Amino acid sequence: MLPVNPDRFLADLHHLRSIGASGVGKGVVRPAFSDPDITARKWLADQYRDIGLEARFDPTGTVWGLAEGKSLLIGSHSDTQPEGGWLDGALGVICGLELARAGAEAGVPISTVSFQDEEGRFGVTTSSRIWGGLTSLEDADQLTDTQGITFADARSRLSDVMGDFPDPSRFKGFIECHIEQGPWLDKAGEAAGIVSGIVGIRDMRITFTGEQNHAGTTPMHMRKDAFRGLLRYQELIADRFRNLVVPETVWTTGHVELHPGSHSIVPGRCTFSMQWRDGDKQRLKQMEEVVRLSIDDVASELGLKASTSDMLGIDPVPMDDGFQAALARGAEAEAPGKWRKMPSGALHDAASVAAHMPVAMLFVPSINGISHAFEEDTAEDDLVTGLKILAHAAEELGR
Amino acid sequence: MLPVNPDRFLADLHHLRSIGASGVGKGVVRPAFSDPDITARKWLADQYRDIGLEARFDPTGTVWGLAEGKSLLIGSHSDTQPEGGWLDGALGVICGLELARAGAEAGVPISTVSFQDEEGRFGVTTSSRIWGGLTSLEDADQLTDTQGITFADARSRLSDVMGDFPDPSRFKGFIECHIEQGPWLDKAGEAAGIVSGIVGIRDMRITFTGEQNHAGTTPMHMRKDAFRGLLRYQELIADRFRNLVVPETVWTTGHVELHPGSHSIVPGRCTFSMQWRDGDKQRLKQMEEVVRLSIDDVASELGLKASTSDMLGIDPVPMDDGFQAALARGAEAEAPGKWRKMPSGALHDAASVAAHMPVAMLFVPSINGISHAFEEDTAEDDLVTGLKILAHAAEELGR
Repeated sequence: MLPVNPDRFLADLHHLRSIGASGVGKGVVRPAFSDPDITARKWLADQYRDIGLEARFDPTGTVWGLAEGKSLLIGSHSDTQPEGGWLDGALGVICGLELARAGAEAGVPISTVSFQDEEGRFGVTTSSRIWGGLTSLEDADQLTDTQGITFADARSRLSDVMGDFPDPSRFKGFIECHIEQGPWLDKAGEAAGIVSGIVGIRDMRITFTGEQNHAGTTPMHMRKDAFRGLLRYQELIADRFRNLVVPETVWTTGHVELHPGSHSIVPGRCTFSMQWRDGDKQRLKQMEEVVRLSIDDVASELGLKASTSDMLGIDPVPMDDGFQAALARGAEAEAPGKWRKMPSGALHDAASVAAHMPVAMLFVPSINGISHAFEEDTAEDDLVTGLKILAHAAEELGR
Repeated sequence: MLPVNPDRFLADLHHLRSIGASGVGKGVVRPAFSDPDITARKWLADQYRDIGLEARFDPTGTVWGLAEGKSLLIGSHSDTQPEGGWLDGALGVICGLELARAGAEAGVPISTVSFQDEEGRFGVTTSSRIWGGLTSLEDADQLTDTQGITFADARSRLSDVMGDFPDPSRFKGFIECHIEQGPWLDKAGEAAGIVSGIVGIRDMRITFTGEQNHAGTTPMHMRKDAFRGLLRYQELIADRFRNLVVPETVWTTGHVELHPGSHSIVPGRCTFSMQWRDGDKQRLKQMEEVVRLSIDDVASELGLKASTSDMLGIDPVPMDDGFQAALARGAEAEAPGKWRKMPSGALHDAASVAAHMPVAMLFVPSINGISHAFEEDTAEDDLVTGLKILAHAAEELGR
């Protein structure tokens, strides 16, 4: 096991939390390319240099700590949701920092990374997808956030420090430690989850267009109320998904906008998000068919027009068997009988990195399953157990 | 009939349209206290002075053209919706200007007015409600727009020109000309509607609060998705209103906000508007009982918390019989057999003014019933017919 230092690790984790601390509990507000995000990345680069690694920003704003020669890569992302917790991404980044430091002390070459915009200000896992070759930098540059700012504009904030992308062939593989973000480990009183695979995601925006009109003088039977399209669509998919999904399948509408958004105007346009996730690519496809059929049915039934954005499609990604086995040996050493294999319902940068090399992921428990919220937390004992499991696997895989 | 000049009237109407013209069709963007709104009000004050009226801004930003002695008051409002048409309010204001001018030429004392914030940047018919004594200026000063700006801050933009409120006893009564904003006159090929009464309105914001969580890792059966509250609420009221409402009853949700509004987060909070209108005060009350019962049922059924804003309550207002009769004689002279009596489904400043004096309203057709939208329009022949009907009634009632 690499000689990790739990106190140093926890001190670094709390320091990173202080950059963008929200003032509410342990909450953090550090979205991609915000001032706190850039401050955090420059602080990470300083830490990497102190270890003797080459600190490098790539063109997407990802910050790397690169060991010489062929090395094992360990890391995650340090950007957060608009209202995020202190561990999502940050935990994996500080695990990477501590393991790279322990590796340097033990003569085991460990590189580390904090990817940019995992949380999707512009896309989702934006920077790792570019590095993984799943999106081109040119295409990504056109992506906009909710304020209309492009990825190209945002990444230009770091142009003074940017270098090249590292060559993927310099890495033996990638391990990402992350909070589970779900309830299973916490409910079972277990310390760790070894991820078997990452579910696939489909995500789109749907727009129904009707007729904007006065809410007092337009009789109910003459309205073409775009909001009715949303209600009917949700009713149809709830019905049609019933015999198609499994207990692990999830679908979510997290954003709705009515136009023009006045109490006294029948909305002429309704735009909303539709996202679904499942570990089975075939099921994702069948759900897409239901979604598209339901959109068409709503439009013809209610006399609305319908349109959809391009669909984001991320396929399910299996984790490397050998890496999983190494993590399992570490887990059995540090938390015997208190870990499980499990799928990841959340997308992670590891899914992008899998295009280049073997990848694996380790989960630690999320208290009450809460994440993407100020209340997100994990017991510090569990954080340290996760670090030690990684230290076992990194010793074995990194030499 | 007062000696109105249709060409002068139409020229003034087009000039007012040019102040805040949206660049799309005949659309206008001139919300209360915006730069175009203030420019328009100062231009109106200049026109009033040119006629020989006393031009006065009251403390709410309403601009008055005051004839000497006891006079008939004719007007409406010149502010628009965030995306408005060229006639809503503006038509009644320019009718008032032309009739005051014709009255001055004929020796009939006609005063005129453009009320402020009829469209509800802060409340709804904000300024006329203050003048009508339905709201105090102190209470109104606390109202905020969607950006958090208070009415007190907004009206301070006109503090350099503000005078006192005019005494309501100086007016014999009030007539407001307005586009119908509904489909009935246009569909029937009729030129005018004489309003029998204005429907009452109830309006509130409803919030369901659940648990914000990750959209990939939170199983469907463990979610407390606030958006589900909105869906279930809409289902319940659609069912429960069915045997309560009449064909004229309307209800609308024109604004929805999910928090935090991300594709990848199960929304922890959903806030939406709920407005309903009817001519019968008892039915409005019964609908309120259904609304409140349904909110409670949704909350307990789905394990959400629920809260509501204060409810805005505007009661139905009948129009004066004698004024209606005078308008009917004018309509029969100018458009024989081509007019009707009808209720107003929209709220108007006349409803506030009714607290002080006899009021009446005249409607002209809205093409395809469209209003509160850039497409709002009326044939110019119909606008002139409306002006002439008013000129008959104003001659009769104003002397």
